[in-house]
Amino acid sequence: MRKHNFGAGPGILPESALQKSAAAALDFNNIGMSILEISHRSKDFDAVMIQTKSLVKELLGVPDHYSILFLQGGASTQFAMVPMNLLHKKAAYVDSGVWANKALKEARLFGEVDVIASSKDKNYSYVPKGYQIPGDCDYLHITSNNTIYGTQMKNFPESPVPVVCDMSSDIFSRPVDVSKFDLIYAGAQKNMGPAGVTLVIIKNDILKEVQRVVPTMLRYQTHIDGDSLYNTPPVFSIFVCMATLEWLKSIGGVSAIEKINQAKADLFYGEVDSNPLFTGTCEKEDRSNMNACFLLKNPELDEEFMKVTKAAGIIGIKGHRSVGGFRASMYNALPIESVKVLTQVMKEFALKTA
Amino acid sequence: MRKHNFGAGPGILPESALQKSAAAALDFNNIGMSILEISHRSKDFDAVMIQTKSLVKELLGVPDHYSILFLQGGASTQFAMVPMNLLHKKAAYVDSGVWANKALKEARLFGEVDVIASSKDKNYSYVPKGYQIPGDCDYLHITSNNTIYGTQMKNFPESPVPVVCDMSSDIFSRPVDVSKFDLIYAGAQKNMGPAGVTLVIIKNDILKEVQRVVPTMLRYQTHIDGDSLYNTPPVFSIFVCMATLEWLKSIGGVSAIEKINQAKADLFYGEVDSNPLFTGTCEKEDRSNMNACFLLKNPELDEEFMKVTKAAGIIGIKGHRSVGGFRASMYNALPIESVKVLTQVMKEFALKTA
Repeated sequence: MRKHNFGAGPGILPESALQKSAAAALDFNNIGMSILEISHRSKDFDAVMIQTKSLVKELLGVPDHYSILFLQGGASTQFAMVPMNLLHKKAAYVDSGVWANKALKEARLFGEVDVIASSKDKNYSYVPKGYQIPGDCDYLHITSNNTIYGTQMKNFPESPVPVVCDMSSDIFSRPVDVSKFDLIYAGAQKNMGPAGVTLVIIKNDILKEVQRVVPTMLRYQTHIDGDSLYNTPPVFSIFVCMATLEWLKSIGGVSAIEKINQAKADLFYGEVDSNPLFTGTCEKEDRSNMNACFLLKNPELDEEFMKVTKAAGIIGIKGHRSVGGFRASMYNALPIESVKVLTQVMKEFALKTA
Repeated sequence: MRKHNFGAGPGILPESALQKSAAAALDFNNIGMSILEISHRSKDFDAVMIQTKSLVKELLGVPDHYSILFLQGGASTQFAMVPMNLLHKKAAYVDSGVWANKALKEARLFGEVDVIASSKDKNYSYVPKGYQIPGDCDYLHITSNNTIYGTQMKNFPESPVPVVCDMSSDIFSRPVDVSKFDLIYAGAQKNMGPAGVTLVIIKNDILKEVQRVVPTMLRYQTHIDGDSLYNTPPVFSIFVCMATLEWLKSIGGVSAIEKINQAKADLFYGEVDSNPLFTGTCEKEDRSNMNACFLLKNPELDEEFMKVTKAAGIIGIKGHRSVGGFRASMYNALPIESVKVLTQVMKEFALKTA
């Protein structure tokens, strides 16, 4: 029995991707070797790289003058790579959550950081808006979805300077106009694949010489020149991304999944708002379709609620310690049926507790 | 039919590890979720981390005052992390191959590098010996096995300064006295697991404050403090390492595999030395038990030899472009039967060609 996996990440993946991955781990393409033991320079893996890149390009509509890279080290490594490669004098950061805050702290190691907007005053329960972006900054850094606090940018700011966006927790969940961004990065382990690979989409002409010493592996140019094969890439993680994106394409791509994600979010937030026991934690207009944070008005019921959800096969809804309560992450691969199970449990819990 | 996989890495893994990995990719521990979609903070993954660390510790005899870390970015990232964290004024490097050379070039970005010995003069066909290690260096960097050139350090130098060793291509292939080293690193994708995770074994007291700015993710202290969970680790890659090390333990550990590896190497080099068509490329005393480089004396036969090996199910023996000819990598998981098949093909090739 598959669990109803509402975990915040690494998160649920499509069953077809799991099946392809398990099969390839035993014998890949009937070549008498596992995907885990083939050379990253083999023609079999070459085909995986080409197909994965081509799926990213097609699904997100990445223009030709961008490079698509598969790196290691997660978004946390990008927090350093971005300023090391792009921060010459000053960068603008929007402080919209724990990860955005980590990104700007890391940037401060390398130059001046202008925090042009923050929602820290209300425990990051909303997305900052209406801020001015200084034209003298090297770039603007934003976070499209705040996994921990459950907020999501519904519109992206018009910017006079290059835009860098951490899309770790909502990439591939909705269409985005990639041409409005200069660098997009995302740890794969939510909507794209397993932990262990980081997607970077970078506009080729954004890189200029920097004065500081940057380790070879932390230079974007290294990986652009090497086509993500400067050193051994995380072969299997990239394969799982390919299988996950093949599934996404098969169901209609990002426009189709956006509708499904919207339906899941409507169903879930509808229950939160109508159920007398529960309340949301964020500004309604900023609520994330990926991560829904919610509380029991009476926290004494928390333990009992965890018990009944567990009994229903629901996993991963304990809230992050920074917010408390609960969080239902509804990534692409989570079926709407799982949301129905959760909302049904919430309904029954309200009836029983009333 | 399993191939006879002599690939240099990512290399052959034990079948039991592949089977465990494939099963866990479908449903891990019967929890109704794949290992690819569970939280790195879950108790199920916790058990994997604890078991993997404990196997590394037991198999290599790692003393208590060392930390065992699972990082990302491969040995290439370690080439930078080592000097960034340890190079204050000057470091000594032994230049024994392409990777050693890359490591020392990277170190030069961060300080003075004293190349105290090199075998570049003879295309890295031997392991430098008898060099003086200056006592005023912050550390000595060595490479235990040179994958590309097929040489291996049979004895490690006595050093007055801390020793850092890249063991990517022969870790777990033989016993080593870890207490003689201050930092050992190894990309997993040869003897330990799949691509996508890097093992670091570090003596806790070796880290001192450095003057330079080091990104958070490139500080060893970050990962020591976070117990390799500062950010999301490569969950599945670590699982495959666990399964691979469980296999190694089940067959008797590193002393047992050392004997098997020696038998494979003896069998193979015996054939190279007695077969009139072939010749080795390295000093005999420095020949690697992991990667055996060899040539056909008449390179016009190369194509035909590739053809007959392929027909016998032999994979991955094309030599690296820096050496040419052929390379048979005989990692832990390669059965001696595969070496017998290869040497038999060599024998028959000699008979046919004579």
